[in-house]
Amino acid sequence: MKHNFGAGPGILPQYALEEASKGVLNFNGSGLSILEISHRSADFEAVLKKAIDLVKELLHVPDGYSILFLQGGASMQFGMVPFNLLEEGHTASYLDTGVWSSKALKEAKIFGNVEVVASGKAVNYTTIPTDYTVSPNADYFHITSNNTIYGTQLSAFPKSPVPLVADMSSDIFSRVFNIEDFGLIYAGAQKNMGPAGATLVIVKDEILGKVNRKIPSMLNYQALIEGGSMYNTPPVFAIYVCMLTLEWLKNLGGVPEIEIRNKDKADLLYKEIDRNPLFKGTANAADRSKMNVCFVMEDPTMESAFLALAKNKGLVGLKGHRSVGGFRASIYNALPISSVEILVETMQEFEKSHD
Amino acid sequence: MKHNFGAGPGILPQYALEEASKGVLNFNGSGLSILEISHRSADFEAVLKKAIDLVKELLHVPDGYSILFLQGGASMQFGMVPFNLLEEGHTASYLDTGVWSSKALKEAKIFGNVEVVASGKAVNYTTIPTDYTVSPNADYFHITSNNTIYGTQLSAFPKSPVPLVADMSSDIFSRVFNIEDFGLIYAGAQKNMGPAGATLVIVKDEILGKVNRKIPSMLNYQALIEGGSMYNTPPVFAIYVCMLTLEWLKNLGGVPEIEIRNKDKADLLYKEIDRNPLFKGTANAADRSKMNVCFVMEDPTMESAFLALAKNKGLVGLKGHRSVGGFRASIYNALPISSVEILVETMQEFEKSHD
Repeated sequence: MKHNFGAGPGILPQYALEEASKGVLNFNGSGLSILEISHRSADFEAVLKKAIDLVKELLHVPDGYSILFLQGGASMQFGMVPFNLLEEGHTASYLDTGVWSSKALKEAKIFGNVEVVASGKAVNYTTIPTDYTVSPNADYFHITSNNTIYGTQLSAFPKSPVPLVADMSSDIFSRVFNIEDFGLIYAGAQKNMGPAGATLVIVKDEILGKVNRKIPSMLNYQALIEGGSMYNTPPVFAIYVCMLTLEWLKNLGGVPEIEIRNKDKADLLYKEIDRNPLFKGTANAADRSKMNVCFVMEDPTMESAFLALAKNKGLVGLKGHRSVGGFRASIYNALPISSVEILVETMQEFEKSHD
Repeated sequence: MKHNFGAGPGILPQYALEEASKGVLNFNGSGLSILEISHRSADFEAVLKKAIDLVKELLHVPDGYSILFLQGGASMQFGMVPFNLLEEGHTASYLDTGVWSSKALKEAKIFGNVEVVASGKAVNYTTIPTDYTVSPNADYFHITSNNTIYGTQLSAFPKSPVPLVADMSSDIFSRVFNIEDFGLIYAGAQKNMGPAGATLVIVKDEILGKVNRKIPSMLNYQALIEGGSMYNTPPVFAIYVCMLTLEWLKNLGGVPEIEIRNKDKADLLYKEIDRNPLFKGTANAADRSKMNVCFVMEDPTMESAFLALAKNKGLVGLKGHRSVGGFRASIYNALPISSVEILVETMQEFEKSHD
């Protein structure tokens, strides 16, 4: 039995894996694999429709917003957002909370001016800046809701005088939020939603069509919306697994219920980190992520011994990102609290053996 | 038992489906799904390396070319090719052999001038034009090697005084060709190589880096090459199934062997179309595709009855594209000749019952 704390592609619900495995051999009793049916078949059109309907239902997406399943991950959105929203000569505002924010704003500079309203870089992104103002003249304001590498998360979303754009790759569907506060949300699937290869975009229709440049069709949100996520062949299997994962989420009680479970998991683990004299958290307490829990040992020379013990217990994916070191326990939606309990027990066992 | 003549996403080898189905539950005995392992894990890095090595081996890709697995399908390449290769104010030449060529050249117009050297549009793309010249001043010359909708295929590739760029989505790995005749080849995976969600690009390094515009990283071949197809999280599962499919192809004898099998399948079916008085082919005989066989009935009112009989026999995906009508039998690499034999028998049975 493995306990998958990987940062992404990360753990998926067993239900989704079992159904997907069957579908690869025989989808819906059709005698064909989900991998070899037409994306224009009634069978797949039903999958795509259901995936979109589940997004709508689970996040309470109101009319006036479009839901897209695309390819290319969040990194493709780093370019597509300014391609579609940032007029030449205009300015977009970015909050810099880590490597991914930095990459996003670097791409925006290809299309216009970028104002970094605040940056956590000087403190290695362990704290999320809160003291900043967004200009009402910016074309949009971009944030990263959760920073996987540093284990920080915006606990509340800023008010913005211009369309708020959020990279929610690593915490979408993990907590309740009000979609009407946002102009555009995007998320690579491979943390809380499905496998690598699908990207969710939710965009308020009225913010589109305002830049003058010509946009290649595959990068043009309006063309993609007109095509109903089928401007060309979509990533059929990845969307299918997203649908299964969202179905699982709905059946267990939706986002409000998973938010409670995620809080319980995070509380349990942070409590042990704070109690156990061998360990300490790396993120500013107020900005701690409920998705990626980053921690180190007071004595870094003990870290490899702890990792070895964890591996023995079937705990995988715990090694921290090289820019922070130590450990990172990603506790995405699909990770059961029992896995966190075993991690906590392992930390306690390690503490006792080093008394 | 189904016989899958679908135009794409199309039939895949049973070997690939069975291995992929297992991998979704437990990949390489790791206790984890291929859908939930890190793309930076040794396990997945081995998959990507093997997929690239198989492309290299099967197509005899020489040094000086890079092999990329990307996302977005051929339609994304329609924009990426001119983004990277067509200097503003310069001209790219396109051979217009169908809807997909037309879409490709439409995207190029965003970046520079387009010269259509010849078009088959006036004859509904049933014939591939051969009487044209490519200007030595063009930045590149773009062709579509096989046209799924019309069932036409370039039987030989043109000589080009400038880098030759080919959309080979529907016939890559189906026949031997000399990669050194090309500057860039791209192909959506979902015909002969794997499932929807992965796109293969093979590019001659020396043709890159010659345009002055700034290119978003995810669209920049040079950045993607530097990232080794891992500039960001790649479509892990789709690449895995490509690897399995190429493994299958290698084990049966590689491209020379599949070319023989594809010719046998096409010959068998075209022979029946030409013999059977109820049916007729739609493509110019010299341009007939060995991947997509398009045909209609002399009496179109009989077509629904034939489709119903075919369905009864387990033959699926035979309905022709709306712009051609009738039938389209896609006979991609993974389709066994036995399926074509059953189609031919069904045509003969239908003929007898309408004597």
